[in-house]
Amino acid sequence: MFAFNEINTPLRTIMTPGPVEVDPRVLRAMSTPVLGQFDPAFTQIMNETMEMLRQVFQTKNRWAFPIDGTSRAGIEAVLCSVIEQGDRVLIPIYGRFGHLLTEIAERSGADIHIMECEWGDVFDQEEIINEIKRVKPKVVAIVHGETSTGCMQPLDKIGPACRALNVLCIVDAVATIGGTEVKVDEWQLDAVIGGTQKCLSVPSGMAPISYNDRIEQVINVRKKVEKGIATEDDLLDVKQPIRSNYFDLSQLQDYWGPRRLNHHTEATSMLYALREGTRIVLQEGLKERFERHLLHEKALVEGIKAMGLKLFNDVPWKLPMVTCINIPEGIDGESVRMMLLRQFGIEIASSFGPLQGKIWRIGTMGYSCRKENILFVLAALEGVLIRHGASVQVGQGLQAALNVYELPHLIVK
Amino acid sequence: MFAFNEINTPLRTIMTPGPVEVDPRVLRAMSTPVLGQFDPAFTQIMNETMEMLRQVFQTKNRWAFPIDGTSRAGIEAVLCSVIEQGDRVLIPIYGRFGHLLTEIAERSGADIHIMECEWGDVFDQEEIINEIKRVKPKVVAIVHGETSTGCMQPLDKIGPACRALNVLCIVDAVATIGGTEVKVDEWQLDAVIGGTQKCLSVPSGMAPISYNDRIEQVINVRKKVEKGIATEDDLLDVKQPIRSNYFDLSQLQDYWGPRRLNHHTEATSMLYALREGTRIVLQEGLKERFERHLLHEKALVEGIKAMGLKLFNDVPWKLPMVTCINIPEGIDGESVRMMLLRQFGIEIASSFGPLQGKIWRIGTMGYSCRKENILFVLAALEGVLIRHGASVQVGQGLQAALNVYELPHLIVK
Repeated sequence: MFAFNEINTPLRTIMTPGPVEVDPRVLRAMSTPVLGQFDPAFTQIMNETMEMLRQVFQTKNRWAFPIDGTSRAGIEAVLCSVIEQGDRVLIPIYGRFGHLLTEIAERSGADIHIMECEWGDVFDQEEIINEIKRVKPKVVAIVHGETSTGCMQPLDKIGPACRALNVLCIVDAVATIGGTEVKVDEWQLDAVIGGTQKCLSVPSGMAPISYNDRIEQVINVRKKVEKGIATEDDLLDVKQPIRSNYFDLSQLQDYWGPRRLNHHTEATSMLYALREGTRIVLQEGLKERFERHLLHEKALVEGIKAMGLKLFNDVPWKLPMVTCINIPEGIDGESVRMMLLRQFGIEIASSFGPLQGKIWRIGTMGYSCRKENILFVLAALEGVLIRHGASVQVGQGLQAALNVYELPHLIVK
Repeated sequence: MFAFNEINTPLRTIMTPGPVEVDPRVLRAMSTPVLGQFDPAFTQIMNETMEMLRQVFQTKNRWAFPIDGTSRAGIEAVLCSVIEQGDRVLIPIYGRFGHLLTEIAERSGADIHIMECEWGDVFDQEEIINEIKRVKPKVVAIVHGETSTGCMQPLDKIGPACRALNVLCIVDAVATIGGTEVKVDEWQLDAVIGGTQKCLSVPSGMAPISYNDRIEQVINVRKKVEKGIATEDDLLDVKQPIRSNYFDLSQLQDYWGPRRLNHHTEATSMLYALREGTRIVLQEGLKERFERHLLHEKALVEGIKAMGLKLFNDVPWKLPMVTCINIPEGIDGESVRMMLLRQFGIEIASSFGPLQGKIWRIGTMGYSCRKENILFVLAALEGVLIRHGASVQVGQGLQAALNVYELPHLIVK
């Protein structure tokens, strides 16, 4: 009756906006035998990971640790720990993941105010700042890199404006962390959520977050230690306790901090993966890593254009690690994607909502963001488009990309 | 400035009630290169895992899938998806994890009714059934195996009583799944949460759950699809939407079911681990696996007793995979644990609340539950106790355990 074999997966070239290929060193780190959660050898790994995350987030924040869940778990942990019933939250939406922020904040009891722009645009920062002044929210929650549209919202003025107006600024940097600048301290962002399965090239399943003492003050007021492990010093009568136990940052602080109070059992192997992933990021160097992402983006974009295709996000606010291509008139986008997967083992993405069926999205993130992948996807896309009867400039895509690689200094970004 | 090396952990003998040693085959499975979440090769792995989980849970339930978080994430997903504001929930508490159920249910808005017994006891099932009749709750939430006290609550009559009284029976089987019988269908349990890092010998970070159509009915009424991806057929006006997006089982059903509606990005490598872990359980055979847990428990218990130590949980309701030892008068329990770790690389556990400092807990779970580990922990414990000036029957522990291994048929359980 029992009939399942050992796992045996095909090897793919993953060029989506996540999850992307995992660095082989991270895969190996995950096969390390586990340690108990309070073993000193393990708590040292926890501390090292916190220190490396601080460097990746470019922050001096005390708190920088992962939530044991996927990226949206990190978002929910921050929002539900900060938002109390009726708190006013302003959410500027420019794609699907702005809607997700709304969705999560709403379930946390927020009084939501949204601003929306066309998918493909971003906001002028002044426009958001004016709306903050008008709405006077407790929190502004905003996406930094919107993978659904391939756009990136500048934040360098929004953060300081929030600080000046005493508003908390919470940023979804799931797509951008480790791939482009996310200057938590310089931009004065109060809480930031990163993703593992994108530019960090770690599998999905953890969400590194960082937040400052402004956020911590809000959280600590709501702190409620579990009855099974509370001591007499712990307040048990809390006005608005955080609605989630699992995502309760005040308890997670006691687990990641020196008190080491039992909460969940840390996801050992995923932490090994995150530690190795952040180590590799820092070993490569943030600047060098961001430049690598730009180089391969450039090669891909030049190749796509030379092929005769048009970019959906050929705009100054293009998200550097996501390139969106308008599906040519008369071509079945899903059929192209399927042929790429079945014949070439290459995965690219479609999109959501108003953009469904209109664009393909190609990710150039983390370990997937390397020369041979760019060249392979360009060659394969040309081949598949020809088989679909599309008109392409045969052979031009690869040549344009090779030009970028051979003469990167001649190409002005 | 950058100074962290590759991960380099000591190899431990982990004899706690979790997390325990991970089967090497599971560790290898985790180093498999990842797939995209909607790759047909990956959705097949999702389906296979669901099928194997059904067999491990001994159920024909349609829904059996993991929550991407640690065990308490699974508990919170079930409780917060089922419990609406003001719902009456009865929770019998016989240790720390009963308190955790209270904690989570309370934050979900439940009107909590508790029953408590001494730590070390369990409830007579009739006592609980009478309380169900009196309180008339919507939900009974109860722990099957309480690792904090090493006790196991019989459920075979509580489940059918709940069914007859139209009460939902939700069971925390985190410690027992894969190590002893958890007969979801036969005992008529409506929802069950398992743990990975205990008898399944998979790292912490996923929580397999299963639930039946009685639970599904409650959940479906609260279903609210995210605005960014909802279609016209999806109700957007829901009376009491589930308070969590991440733990919303109604959305998770659409992700694990044929609609494959995007929710989180499944934790790829952890799913590989869970698939391999459940595969190994079924390959060994449930019956054979439970017998193996009993055999090694027997050897450990006989060894501990022969050494002259007393069990805290030498009771008919002993949890087979957790053996609790009374710390002898005048011995510093933490010092013993530290010496075991530092000199022998062996980890055993202390306990919580009223039992803190009073007992040691030794787990015999999953891959950690094997002959060489039992013999090593007995030998090491004897050595360490002698160094702490305790009076022990020198040499007797190992001999008693070896007797069990050489003559298992002579030992009556």
